[in-house]
Amino acid sequence: MVKKQTQMYYGADYNPEQWSKEIILEDMALMKEVGVNYVSINIFGWVSIQPNETTFDFTFLDWLIDLLHENNIMIDLANGTASPPAWLVNKYPDMMPMTVHGNRLVHGSRQHYCPTSEIYRRYAATLSTAVAKRYHQHPAIVMWHINNEYTCHIHECYCDRCRSRFQQWLQDKYQTIDELNRAWSTTFWSQSYGDWHEIYLPEQMPTFKNPAQQLDYRRFISAMNLEIYQIEKEAIAAYSRDIPFMTNLMGLHKYVNGFQWAPEMDVVSWNSYPNPFSDMPYPQFLANDLTRSLKKKPFLIMEQAPSAVNWRAVNGAKKAGQMRLWSYEAIAHGADGIMFFQWRQSRGGAEKFHSAVVPHGQPSESRVFKESCQLGNELKELQAIVGTSFIADIAVVFDWENWWALELDAKPRTLKYIHQLSRLYEALRGLNLAVDFVHPDEDISAYPFVIAPNLYSTHASFGDKIKDYVAGGGIFLTNFFSGIVNENDQVYLGGYPGLFKDILGITVEEFYPLKDTMHGQMTFDQQTFTTHLWEEVIHLKQAKVLAQFNNDDLSNTPAITCNQYGEGFAYYIGTELAPADLTVVLSKIIQDNHLEKAAQQFIEAETPVSVSCRQGTGYTLLFLINHTDIDEHIVLKKKGYSLLDEKPLSEIDVLAKDLQIIKILDDQSDS
Amino acid sequence: MVKKQTQMYYGADYNPEQWSKEIILEDMALMKEVGVNYVSINIFGWVSIQPNETTFDFTFLDWLIDLLHENNIMIDLANGTASPPAWLVNKYPDMMPMTVHGNRLVHGSRQHYCPTSEIYRRYAATLSTAVAKRYHQHPAIVMWHINNEYTCHIHECYCDRCRSRFQQWLQDKYQTIDELNRAWSTTFWSQSYGDWHEIYLPEQMPTFKNPAQQLDYRRFISAMNLEIYQIEKEAIAAYSRDIPFMTNLMGLHKYVNGFQWAPEMDVVSWNSYPNPFSDMPYPQFLANDLTRSLKKKPFLIMEQAPSAVNWRAVNGAKKAGQMRLWSYEAIAHGADGIMFFQWRQSRGGAEKFHSAVVPHGQPSESRVFKESCQLGNELKELQAIVGTSFIADIAVVFDWENWWALELDAKPRTLKYIHQLSRLYEALRGLNLAVDFVHPDEDISAYPFVIAPNLYSTHASFGDKIKDYVAGGGIFLTNFFSGIVNENDQVYLGGYPGLFKDILGITVEEFYPLKDTMHGQMTFDQQTFTTHLWEEVIHLKQAKVLAQFNNDDLSNTPAITCNQYGEGFAYYIGTELAPADLTVVLSKIIQDNHLEKAAQQFIEAETPVSVSCRQGTGYTLLFLINHTDIDEHIVLKKKGYSLLDEKPLSEIDVLAKDLQIIKILDDQSDS
Amino acid sequence: MVKKQTQMYYGADYNPEQWSKEIILEDMALMKEVGVNYVSINIFGWVSIQPNETTFDFTFLDWLIDLLHENNIMIDLANGTASPPAWLVNKYPDMMPMTVHGNRLVHGSRQHYCPTSEIYRRYAATLSTAVAKRYHQHPAIVMWHINNEYTCHIHECYCDRCRSRFQQWLQDKYQTIDELNRAWSTTFWSQSYGDWHEIYLPEQMPTFKNPAQQLDYRRFISAMNLEIYQIEKEAIAAYSRDIPFMTNLMGLHKYVNGFQWAPEMDVVSWNSYPNPFSDMPYPQFLANDLTRSLKKKPFLIMEQAPSAVNWRAVNGAKKAGQMRLWSYEAIAHGADGIMFFQWRQSRGGAEKFHSAVVPHGQPSESRVFKESCQLGNELKELQAIVGTSFIADIAVVFDWENWWALELDAKPRTLKYIHQLSRLYEALRGLNLAVDFVHPDEDISAYPFVIAPNLYSTHASFGDKIKDYVAGGGIFLTNFFSGIVNENDQVYLGGYPGLFKDILGITVEEFYPLKDTMHGQMTFDQQTFTTHLWEEVIHLKQAKVLAQFNNDDLSNTPAITCNQYGEGFAYYIGTELAPADLTVVLSKIIQDNHLEKAAQQFIEAETPVSVSCRQGTGYTLLFLINHTDIDEHIVLKKKGYSLLDEKPLSEIDVLAKDLQIIKILDDQSDS
Repeated sequence: MVKKQTQMYYGADYNPEQWSKEIILEDMALMKEVGVNYVSINIFGWVSIQPNETTFDFTFLDWLIDLLHENNIMIDLANGTASPPAWLVNKYPDMMPMTVHGNRLVHGSRQHYCPTSEIYRRYAATLSTAVAKRYHQHPAIVMWHINNEYTCHIHECYCDRCRSRFQQWLQDKYQTIDELNRAWSTTFWSQSYGDWHEIYLPEQMPTFKNPAQQLDYRRFISAMNLEIYQIEKEAIAAYSRDIPFMTNLMGLHKYVNGFQWAPEMDVVSWNSYPNPFSDMPYPQFLANDLTRSLKKKPFLIMEQAPSAVNWRAVNGAKKAGQMRLWSYEAIAHGADGIMFFQWRQSRGGAEKFHSAVVPHGQPSESRVFKESCQLGNELKELQAIVGTSFIADIAVVFDWENWWALELDAKPRTLKYIHQLSRLYEALRGLNLAVDFVHPDEDISAYPFVIAPNLYSTHASFGDKIKDYVAGGGIFLTNFFSGIVNENDQVYLGGYPGLFKDILGITVEEFYPLKDTMHGQMTFDQQTFTTHLWEEVIHLKQAKVLAQFNNDDLSNTPAITCNQYGEGFAYYIGTELAPADLTVVLSKIIQDNHLEKAAQQFIEAETPVSVSCRQGTGYTLLFLINHTDIDEHIVLKKKGYSLLDEKPLSEIDVLAKDLQIIKILDDQSDS
Repeated sequence: MVKKQTQMYYGADYNPEQWSKEIILEDMALMKEVGVNYVSINIFGWVSIQPNETTFDFTFLDWLIDLLHENNIMIDLANGTASPPAWLVNKYPDMMPMTVHGNRLVHGSRQHYCPTSEIYRRYAATLSTAVAKRYHQHPAIVMWHINNEYTCHIHECYCDRCRSRFQQWLQDKYQTIDELNRAWSTTFWSQSYGDWHEIYLPEQMPTFKNPAQQLDYRRFISAMNLEIYQIEKEAIAAYSRDIPFMTNLMGLHKYVNGFQWAPEMDVVSWNSYPNPFSDMPYPQFLANDLTRSLKKKPFLIMEQAPSAVNWRAVNGAKKAGQMRLWSYEAIAHGADGIMFFQWRQSRGGAEKFHSAVVPHGQPSESRVFKESCQLGNELKELQAIVGTSFIADIAVVFDWENWWALELDAKPRTLKYIHQLSRLYEALRGLNLAVDFVHPDEDISAYPFVIAPNLYSTHASFGDKIKDYVAGGGIFLTNFFSGIVNENDQVYLGGYPGLFKDILGITVEEFYPLKDTMHGQMTFDQQTFTTHLWEEVIHLKQAKVLAQFNNDDLSNTPAITCNQYGEGFAYYIGTELAPADLTVVLSKIIQDNHLEKAAQQFIEAETPVSVSCRQGTGYTLLFLINHTDIDEHIVLKKKGYSLLDEKPLSEIDVLAKDLQIIKILDDQSDS
Repeated sequence: MVKKQTQMYYGADYNPEQWSKEIILEDMALMKEVGVNYVSINIFGWVSIQPNETTFDFTFLDWLIDLLHENNIMIDLANGTASPPAWLVNKYPDMMPMTVHGNRLVHGSRQHYCPTSEIYRRYAATLSTAVAKRYHQHPAIVMWHINNEYTCHIHECYCDRCRSRFQQWLQDKYQTIDELNRAWSTTFWSQSYGDWHEIYLPEQMPTFKNPAQQLDYRRFISAMNLEIYQIEKEAIAAYSRDIPFMTNLMGLHKYVNGFQWAPEMDVVSWNSYPNPFSDMPYPQFLANDLTRSLKKKPFLIMEQAPSAVNWRAVNGAKKAGQMRLWSYEAIAHGADGIMFFQWRQSRGGAEKFHSAVVPHGQPSESRVFKESCQLGNELKELQAIVGTSFIADIAVVFDWENWWALELDAKPRTLKYIHQLSRLYEALRGLNLAVDFVHPDEDISAYPFVIAPNLYSTHASFGDKIKDYVAGGGIFLTNFFSGIVNENDQVYLGGYPGLFKDILGITVEEFYPLKDTMHGQMTFDQQTFTTHLWEEVIHLKQAKVLAQFNNDDLSNTPAITCNQYGEGFAYYIGTELAPADLTVVLSKIIQDNHLEKAAQQFIEAETPVSVSCRQGTGYTLLFLINHTDIDEHIVLKKKGYSLLDEKPLSEIDVLAKDLQIIKILDDQSDS
C-alpha cells in the first residue's frame, strides 16, 4: 500500500549543495517562518553523492535529511539522475544526445543524455539503487522524485543507436515490414521498405518527411523516456514500494504523452510557469485541469516561481497577490500542494535570476518572501481540501498524438493545438463550466457534454464511441479539421470529416484557410461574428444550420451546424471564433440542451467570479476566485462556512483579486 | 523524326501505385467524364518496378499501360528515377547529398541524390534502359518524362566527390590555373591558387565568399543535373528516338538554366503553382512566356493544382473559375496542354492535402471536379490551337546567370531579379504588349524593342550586339544596375554602366540605394512618381533627360534618359518605379517610336482585357481574357468566329472573369 | 626608441596586387593630387610574396616600396598574415576554425585560421620574419601593421585543439580544479569537475550554458588572438624595434578586449564604419573616444569608407560633406591620421562595391574623389594637431568583460551594452561634456565625475575604489543592473546592487523589466519622463529621492536617488531614459556639483556646436563642429586664430555641417 497524503504540501525545490551549513541552518528557521512542510531535494545531486565512478558519499545528504526531519519537513527525495556528472560524460561521450546536424551535445548545462543510451540507463539505475537502499526507510521521505522534467530540452536524438532502437521499436509495433509500409503509406513517393534496417530516423531530408514516420518517432521518443522512468522506478521499487512515485511533468509540454505516463505514477504533478505579463494565463489554468485529468485525482504544483523566471527574453515579476491567486486557482482545480522553484536564489549559474522564496537580498525586505509566508500560513488552515475530488461538468478531448499530428507540416494551413485549446478553454471559463480532459480511449459515458476540439487525428474506434454516446443522448461538439485522419495520418475517405460526417449530418467539400492578416464573417442568432484562420465549404446532409458565413465566396453557406442523432445532438463549428463569441455559441448549446453545472447547486453560476467545486467525504468545497478588478457579492443557495476565516454564512463578498473557499455539508435540506 | 502532338493534351500526374485495382478502374470512368486524354505515370514508380536490386517487376505497369491505352488515354511515361528506393540509399549512403554543414541527407522524402553520384547515375540509367526497352514500342506512349523537377530541393551538395568534380569541371572550363585566377580575381584577399586540387566548394567560410567561385558553382550544379538528364535520355534513346523527350521544368526556378537545358528537350513544359490569394499572379503569367521562349515553340503546363496546394504556410483554394481562367492564360501564351498534379488525392503521405481532380470526398459534390470536367470538354473543341505560334511584340532579356550574379551578396543593396522582372512584366501587361524572353546570345534583330531589365552581369559581346541593334534602328531600354559586370562578376571599368554607357549616352557616378522604408520622388512628363529601392547620380553625356529626381540629394538630376544612337534610341531608368508608373513611361516610349502591337491588326488593343495572338496556318487566334470584374465589349477589325461557341462575329462581349477565343482567317480583305 | 609621428597621416589601404604597373604609376600621380602621405600595404599580400611553401618572391613588393618612397609616401607595412594562402590551408586543413556545428571552414574568403593553430602561428611567424628582415631598414616604413582586424569574423572555434588549449589556459588561471569549481559555481546543476580534461568548450548543450564558463571562453579567445599578435610582433621585433607596432582595432567590437591589448601596441587605431543613413552616428563618435582612451594618447582612423560600404543589406552613400565632417569629428577627439579603405576600388572580388578614393569611374567626375582631395589638402595645413592631447571633462567606465557578462542569456531581460552606452554618450554630447573612457582598474582620481553605466559585472576591488573616490569628494553615477555580480557572474549577496548599495544608500528589492512594447513614467523636477526597458523596486537607506516612478505598480517609489558619502555624492538611475531626458538629469547633477568643462575656458559651452579641446605644447586647439543644419556664431573668451584659414579672431561663424579649429596660445591674459 502506498502511503497517503494527509496534509496540504507547501514547500520548494531545495538545492543546498550550493550553500554552507551555516546558511542551511538559517534556511531551517526561514522555512518554519514560511510554513514549509515539504521540500524536494537531490534533483541535481548526482555529482555530490557520486563524485567519481567508484565513490558514493552520502555524508552531506545524510545530514541534510536528518536535519529536515528534525525540522518536521517532509521530503520529496529525488534519485538525482537529472544531470549526469562530467566524469561520466567524458568516459562515455556517446551517452550524449546527437542533434539533427550530427553533433553530440556536451556537458556544461543539464539533462544531457541520449534517450536510448544504455550507459545512462545503467548508471542512473545504479544511482537510484544506492539512493533507495540508503534512504527508503527514512521516516522523512514521503515521495520519490524520479529524474526531472523529462524531454524538457532533449526531445530529439539522431545517433546511430537511436536509429537502431527505432527500427527495433517499429518491428515490435508492426511485426511485419508490409504492415509498416501500409501504415506509413510508402507507396507514395517510392518510399517502400524491404527490411527494417533500411529505415532512417526522420533526419534531414530534401523536403517534407513521411508524416507517419514522424508520428512514430514522436511516440518512440516519449516511449524511450518512459522506459528510463521505469528503469529508475524499478531500481527504487526493489527497496521501496510504500512511498509514492512521481516525476514532475510540464503541463502543456508536447513531448511526453501524459495519458500514457500517468498510470506509471502514484501522483501526478506539474511545473507551472505562467507569464506574469498575462493577467489571465489560460494555458496554465487549462494545464491544471489537464494534469488532474491524467489520473482524475488531486495533483501537485511541483514547481512555480514565487515571482519572475529567468529564461524568457523579458522576465516580468509577478504582481502583488498574483502568486497567491494563481496558487488557489490550482487548488480550486484539484491541487493538493504548492511548491516553488526554488527555495533560495542561487548565487551563480544559469538560474540565479530566477526568483526564489529566499531572495538575494534580505527576506525581511522582500514582498515575495512575505507573500510566501502568507500563503503558507493560510494553507495550514485548509487541510479539509486534501484528497477531495474536483467535480467536472463536461469533458474535453485532449490527445498528445493529435497534437503531434496536427502540427506536422504540409497541412491546409499551420494550426497550433494549444492555441486552439486555450481559446476554447477561455470560452468555457466564461461560462464557469468545469472541465475534465479525457483521452479518446477513456469512458465518456458519464459526461453529459463532450467537446473534441480540432481532433484532426484519432482512431476509428473513437468515431464509433461517439456514435454510441450521442445515440444514447450525449451532446457532442467538434470543429474544423477534426476527424480527418487515422492514427497514421491517413485520410478517412469519402468526404470530410470522414470519422464524424455521419454523426454530424454534414460533409465538408473543401477547406478555405485564411491568411493571418485576413478574416471573414459569420451570422449567428442575428449577431455578426468575425471568423479567423479557417473557413470551409459545408454541405448539409441531415444537419440544421445554426450559423452562416457571409463572405463573398461562402455567402449563406453553413458555418455552424446541429444534427440530431439518436437521442443526442452533434454540433459542428467550421471556423475559428474569438473566445467571447465562442462563449455565446456554447451558451446557446448549454441552454438548448438544459445542461446543468455542479456549482448551480450552491450558487447562481453566472458570475464573473471563477467557481469550482471539490467533493469531500460529506461536504463540498466551493471555490470562488475573483480574478477581476471589481468586488463581487455572492449569495449561497445552501449554508456554508468560509475556510479562510471560518465564519458560517449564507452570502459573501469576494473582493477583487481575492478568493473565498466555502465548505458546505452534504446533509442539509435546501434553504 | 519525333512524333508531333496532334491534340490539346489534358490530364494529370497519375500515381496509381497508391490505389487498388478497383479504384483504378473507377478512375478510367472518371477520366472519361473529365475529358482526360493524357496522363503522366511512373514518376515515383522506382521501388514498385524495382523492389530490390536484382528484381524488375513490370506486372502492374504492364497492366496499367494497357488499361490506359484501352481507354484511349495517351501516356507520358516517366523513367521513374525521381525517388531512389530505400534499398539503394542503404547500400550506397554516399549517393546522398551532403549539406553545407556536412550532413548526408537520408531517405524518407523524395529526390534524394547527389548531383555527381556515379551510383545514382548508373542505377538511374539501368532503370531507364529497362523501362525504355519494355515500353518503347507501346502505342500509348507519346512522351518520355525524364526524372522530375530537377534541383527542386537539392541545389547544393558539398561532398568530397562534388568538390573533386568541381575541380575537374573548372579545369575543363579554364584549362590553366592562371586563367581561373584571372577569372576569379584571386589577387584580391590573397586567394590565388597554385593547383586545381586546392580549390574548395563554396562551403562555410569566415565571411563573403569569392563571387566568381559562387557563380561557377551555380553553373556546375546546373551542368551536373543536365548531365544526369542526358544520361537518362541516352539510355532511353538507345531504344527510342521517335517519341519526344521532356522533363518538367519549374518556370521561375533559379537553379536550372532553362536556356541551356531546352535544346536537349523536344518539348518544354513547366509546373505552374500560383498562389490563389493573388488575383493576378504575374510571376506565373511571366513564366508562361518564359517557358515558351526557351524554344520559341508551344509548351505544356505539365502540372498545376486544381485548387489548393499543401506546401505553403497557408494554402488558399483557387476561387470558382480561377483555375479555368489561368489555364486559358497559359494557352493564350503558347500552351498546348494543361495537366494537373494530381489525378486522385492521396490518402497518406506528404501531399495528401494537395488538391487533385478526384478529391478525398465525392467527385459529384466537388466544384473542383466539375470545373475540371468543364475545361476538359471545352478543350476537346479547341484543336485549332495545337501547334500555333505565339506572336510577340517585343523582347525582354532574361538570363539565369544574371539572376545568380545579381543576387550574390555584397552589393550596393539586395535586389531580387524576379521581383524586378515581375514588376516590369506587370507594367508591360498594362499595355497589352506581347513579350518574348530572349537570352543575351540570341538573335534579337527581328524585334523592334528590346528591354534588358537589371541586367547586372552579361558578356561583353552583348554590349556589342546592342550597339549594332540600336545603330540599325532598334529601341533599347535598360535600367539601374545593368551592364555593370562581366560573366565573372568583374566590373566594366571607366564609369557605370560600363557595358552600356556609350549607347545610353550617360555615366552613373555613384549608386544611392534606399532602405526598404525610404522612398524618393521623380518628375516625368509633369507627373510626380514615387521612387523605390534605388536612386543614383547620373551624368548626361549625349543623352537627353526624360525625368528628373526631385529629392534633396539628387535635386534636378537625371532619373530617366533617352539617347539617339545611330538609327535607334536607347533609354535608361535609374530607379525602381511602381508598375502603373512604369506603364506610363513605357507607353510614351511606345508612342514616341511608333511601335505597333500584333493585336492591333484585329482590335483596338488599349483594353482592360488581356489580348494575345497565336498564328496558325492560314489563320490567327485572338485570345481575349477578362481578368477584371467588369464585362467588356470588343469590336473586331476583321471578321472571325468564336472557338468556344463557334459563332461568326464582328464584335463580342467578354464577360468578367471569362474569355473568348476568336479565329480569324488570314485571307480576308479588311472590313 | 620608437620613432614619433611628425605629420598628420592621410592615406589609404593600398592593394596594388590587383593592378597593372601602369595603373600603379597612375596611382602615384593621383595620390599626389589627393594629398596622400601614408598608405598601408601588404595586408592581403601573403600569397603574392609566398606563392608556395618554398618560395618567397619580393620582386613586386621591393618595387612598390621603392616607388612609394620615391613619391614621398610613408608606408604602414603589413606583415601580410591576414589571409593564409590556399596551399597552406590544403596542406594543413586543421589550421582552419571549426564551427559550433563541427564544420571546418574552408579557403575562399579571408582571415581563416583557428586561434590556437600552431601551424598558422608558425607560418605567420615565418612570414613576419621574412618581411621584417627584408624591409626593416627601409626608410619609407613608419609603421608595422600586424595582421588585420583580429576576430572580425572568427570569434569562436570548437576544435579539439582549442578544447585542449582552453583546459590548459584554465589550469594556468585557476591552478586547482577546486578553484575553478568555485569560480564557475559548479555545485549548481551537478556540474562539478574532477579533472581539467573533463572540461568542454561551451559548445552545443541542451539548455543554458554555465555563464562563468562562457565568460572564460571569451577571455580565452581574446587571449589566444593576443598570443598570435605577440608572436607576429616578436618575429618582427627580432629585426626592428624602432618602428611602432600596431594592429587595426574595430572600435565597438566585442571580441578583442581593447584595454588588455593596447599595452602591447605603440599606436592604437581603429576602422570606422558609420552607417550613412544616420546623421549622428553616436556609436562611432563614442568609439573615437574609446579608442583614444585605450592609451590616453592620439590614435589613428586606420580605415573609413570614402562613401558607401558593401556589406550591409542596403549600403547608403555618404552625403556631400559627411565624410569630411566625420573625419574632423575623429580628429577633434584625438585622431592624428585619417585613412581610407581603400585607395582604388577593386574590379572583382567581394569588396568591389565598397567605395574607394579612386572609383570605378573617372576620378575627375567623382564627388568622392574631389572631397578626398579637399580633405587631404586641408590636413597639410593642420600639422599643429599632431601629438596634442585630448582634454576630458569626465570619465565613463567601459569594460569588455562587463559587455560579455551583461549580454549572456538568462537575465531579467536582454540588455545591449553598446545600446545603453550610446544613449548615455548621446546625452553627454548634448551637454558638450568631453569623455574619457576608463577601465575599472585604472586610476580615476583625477576625474571630478565618474559614470559607470550598466556595470553589471565587476571586481569587488572596483567597489572599494569607488568608495574611496566618493569619500574623497568624487561624483559617481551608476544605473540599473550595475554592481550585481563579480567577475565570475556570481551575485553580490545581501541586496542589489551588492557592490554599490552602501555608497548609493539604497537597496533594490526586485527588478521589474518591461517588454519592448511597454513603457512607464517617472517624475523628475516636475517633469514627466517616459521610462523604458526596466524599472525596479528601490528602497532608500541613506539616499534622497531625485525622481519617482508614477506607474500603478511602483507609484511614488524612488527612480533616481542621490546619496552623500563622505565628501562626495553617488547617484543612481533605476530605469532607461531617452537621451534627451537623460541630458536633463545629467545637467542637474553637473550644476548641483559645480562641475566645470574644459571648453568653458574658451567659450560658452552651451551651444549646439560640438566642442572639443586638444592640448599642445603652449597652446590649446578648440574644435568647433557644427553637425546641425543651422549656422552658429561663437564668441571666444580668449583670442585665437583659425587653423583652417589662419585668421586671428575673437568670434567666428561655424556654418551648418562645417567646422572651425581655433588655436589659442596658453600665455595670454584673459580678454
